[in-house]
Amino acid sequence: MSVTTSFRPYDGRPVTSVSDTAPEVVQGAVDDAVQAAALLAATSPGQRRAWLRAVADNLETHADALVALADEETALGTPRLTAELDRTAAQLRFYGEVAAEGSYLGVTIDGSTATTPRLVRVNRPVGPVAVFGASNFPFAFGVLGHDTASALAAGCPVVAKAHPAHVGLSVRLADLATESLLSAGAPEATFALVVGQQAGTQLVAAEGTAVVAFTGSQAGGMALWRIVNERDRVIPMYAEMGTVNPVVVTPAGAWNFEEVARGFVGSFTLGSGQYCTKPGLMLVPRGHDAASVVAAALLEAVPRPRMLTEAIAGSVRTTLAELEEAGATNVVTVPGGRDGWSAPAAVLSAPVAALLPGSQLLEECFGAVALVVEYADEEELRSALDALHGSLVGTVVTGGDKDDPDARWLVELLSNQVGRVTVGDWPTGVACSWAQHHGGPWPATTDAGATSVGAAALDRFVRPVTYQSVQDAWLPPPGRADNPWHLPRRIDGRLVIPGSGT
Amino acid sequence: MSVTTSFRPYDGRPVTSVSDTAPEVVQGAVDDAVQAAALLAATSPGQRRAWLRAVADNLETHADALVALADEETALGTPRLTAELDRTAAQLRFYGEVAAEGSYLGVTIDGSTATTPRLVRVNRPVGPVAVFGASNFPFAFGVLGHDTASALAAGCPVVAKAHPAHVGLSVRLADLATESLLSAGAPEATFALVVGQQAGTQLVAAEGTAVVAFTGSQAGGMALWRIVNERDRVIPMYAEMGTVNPVVVTPAGAWNFEEVARGFVGSFTLGSGQYCTKPGLMLVPRGHDAASVVAAALLEAVPRPRMLTEAIAGSVRTTLAELEEAGATNVVTVPGGRDGWSAPAAVLSAPVAALLPGSQLLEECFGAVALVVEYADEEELRSALDALHGSLVGTVVTGGDKDDPDARWLVELLSNQVGRVTVGDWPTGVACSWAQHHGGPWPATTDAGATSVGAAALDRFVRPVTYQSVQDAWLPPPGRADNPWHLPRRIDGRLVIPGSGT
Repeated sequence: MSVTTSFRPYDGRPVTSVSDTAPEVVQGAVDDAVQAAALLAATSPGQRRAWLRAVADNLETHADALVALADEETALGTPRLTAELDRTAAQLRFYGEVAAEGSYLGVTIDGSTATTPRLVRVNRPVGPVAVFGASNFPFAFGVLGHDTASALAAGCPVVAKAHPAHVGLSVRLADLATESLLSAGAPEATFALVVGQQAGTQLVAAEGTAVVAFTGSQAGGMALWRIVNERDRVIPMYAEMGTVNPVVVTPAGAWNFEEVARGFVGSFTLGSGQYCTKPGLMLVPRGHDAASVVAAALLEAVPRPRMLTEAIAGSVRTTLAELEEAGATNVVTVPGGRDGWSAPAAVLSAPVAALLPGSQLLEECFGAVALVVEYADEEELRSALDALHGSLVGTVVTGGDKDDPDARWLVELLSNQVGRVTVGDWPTGVACSWAQHHGGPWPATTDAGATSVGAAALDRFVRPVTYQSVQDAWLPPPGRADNPWHLPRRIDGRLVIPGSGT
Repeated sequence: MSVTTSFRPYDGRPVTSVSDTAPEVVQGAVDDAVQAAALLAATSPGQRRAWLRAVADNLETHADALVALADEETALGTPRLTAELDRTAAQLRFYGEVAAEGSYLGVTIDGSTATTPRLVRVNRPVGPVAVFGASNFPFAFGVLGHDTASALAAGCPVVAKAHPAHVGLSVRLADLATESLLSAGAPEATFALVVGQQAGTQLVAAEGTAVVAFTGSQAGGMALWRIVNERDRVIPMYAEMGTVNPVVVTPAGAWNFEEVARGFVGSFTLGSGQYCTKPGLMLVPRGHDAASVVAAALLEAVPRPRMLTEAIAGSVRTTLAELEEAGATNVVTVPGGRDGWSAPAAVLSAPVAALLPGSQLLEECFGAVALVVEYADEEELRSALDALHGSLVGTVVTGGDKDDPDARWLVELLSNQVGRVTVGDWPTGVACSWAQHHGGPWPATTDAGATSVGAAALDRFVRPVTYQSVQDAWLPPPGRADNPWHLPRRIDGRLVIPGSGT
């Protein structure tokens, strides 16, 4: 039987070995989740908020040990991992609050008229969710990350696949979650973990799986997406994948380019460049010697990138070579350390004419690598932006005042290509709140309408059902006339908020 | 150059011949739509409501001629087609009202905090929508039907494909729409029509097409879905396809089974059975000689099904033979008329054990054909329902009072398999209102979260963008602080309805 082993990126030594989940155990986990789905669907959002709080509390209780284990398996460092664990606990609580608020249920009631029947529309949980967490955020996008938290909040059981890079942490987190959920009164099989690539493939193909949520690379996401689309019963798959995330510096924004360059370096080297929101391409007006200034800022920052896995470290070197083959010039390369899964950081430059459809220059390099491209005028800038694929986030660096003549059209243009447009802020921070959208047009995600962060993350795990001429007693609770869960509703076309007098 | 020709179903004579749209013209239509998309995105929902009203008015002005032409090409009859045209005008106006109300824009604003930036989330139109209308509703689901109306309401240009069965009507409707839209101030290329199967395929594959909306058969929908998934840039496709739409009669609901049977026959023979919501399978408790009673009701109704096309008429005969091969017994067949595209109506029966995965008995027969299956007890009923594919609508016929012990669990069970559950009402009427959901799990649709009828139909044609730390002047109007379009918004997590004091 095969085994999944994690390694210390600091020195390459093995940390944890876990046997891969046997096929019959994977099938059992899905079958149990199908059974649990009906029980979860009958719980109230308030109950599930209590479960999520229990999981968050338990995470915090075991923070020190969890962070230590995570650092062994990721080398992301104690400060960053401590902050990430805190954030993960906050996320779990946030999604519980979103569920309890209840707008995600979309309750809509049309009374009968002379020609139409009474209709009650309610969003219902879809059933078992297969969660594939990311390598780069072992807590926040891991087996108890955004996808799991929002799926549980929406009333769906979760079967998560352990990430091989932090399989030890995945197992520990799963144990903690199972313990907390049971003690808080959640049904058995509300959460389960499977280990191993074969188990992941089986999970996606299993008839009982209702939705797949994935965070990771284009290659990994697309491989699962193909499996999903070959199922007899095709199911939704929400994949959030890495992208180039362009930064545009306007002419007015370039007045103090040294400072801009320092900010850019800070953003693209954060976490050794292992962010799906890493800004990988900067477009700068000609005349600022931009690539050299960014290169100088990189040297000043003295990064020593250490990657999550040996494969990622190797991929940084391969992609660097491919970028040069595709017409980029290496301006500076800062070698990684000698031990473990280190990789270089680098700044490259390319002429704007090289940004052509199909070019490697339009693809993400997952690591502390960025491409700087100068543009002569608005026309060149527009054609460069037109060539880009969809991204999660686009950044505009403006002169900072209301008179920057390029800001507005750039915000508008980027909003057709990305899920989030930020002005002035670097893109690598993603707040989890009501207004967040962490998604974007293909190939940033497989569904541009979906977000994996923020309140709308729950929407991926429900689907509407309309009840026609169904007696109140036979409706699910959110659709009942007496509104037992105190939900915001739309009644005969008008929004009604409980307790507001409207 | 090839030509598309429609025929009179009454006698098979040709009605209209239209040259198929040349490839360069299709490409030009998409290119123009891409240009128009930016102009449409900058219009207000109120402007677009005015355009939709103009189209509705123009439809009504030309009602008599349109209905006459539609009857030539469909044989659906003047009363039905007149009602359908009225309904189509009402739909166009309804989607305009939904746009103007503005909830579909999902405006969400989180003010900045000590640790998070200001975020403004707004839904934006996705761009050109390719619309493939249905054969069976030349107005309501045709080139100016639900998909076109909701796409325009959401701010997206439409390139529709003419349905070959009513290509003359498609061209006439397109001319009327173009005329009304331009006179109401809509940009050029807000709406375009293409003709021919090759043009349709090209439209789906065209880089500029942002979304595909389809109503029709499983075979047609799946063929386009495969093309969509082979694009370089995969786009969303919303296909609403035909399904079996089970009817369950509870033991208490069978007390006056003769009346139930008459209602069932009325529903499955409506429009010669050419409804995507046609109830194709009835599950009845043993002991009512159900198939014979339904057969008697069918003989009493004297249907003379006349199908929309020769291919559909042929398909009815083929599918009837396939159902018998799959284990169904033909209880009664009422032959169609002698002329034109006629087809038989039929009632079949099958043992509950024959409802097995993969069986033809689980597939739709598009026509006035229904299968009656008796169940012995709850266990048999549950196993029969478990075997079914996803459907658009499921019907429960109960004893009509609150004490029917089977109603509640059946409503719950069916709600996992369909998009709409109706109790007592036959499924073939679909009201267009706020609470409607006309969709359902795979293979009823390619996206169980989406509806092609009702207010939420607009949601298919927008996608969220979050603006981070973007100055008010650079935001699109719905996201601006002064709320120029008077939209419902969520601010710092709380719903705020304009003018309500909340």
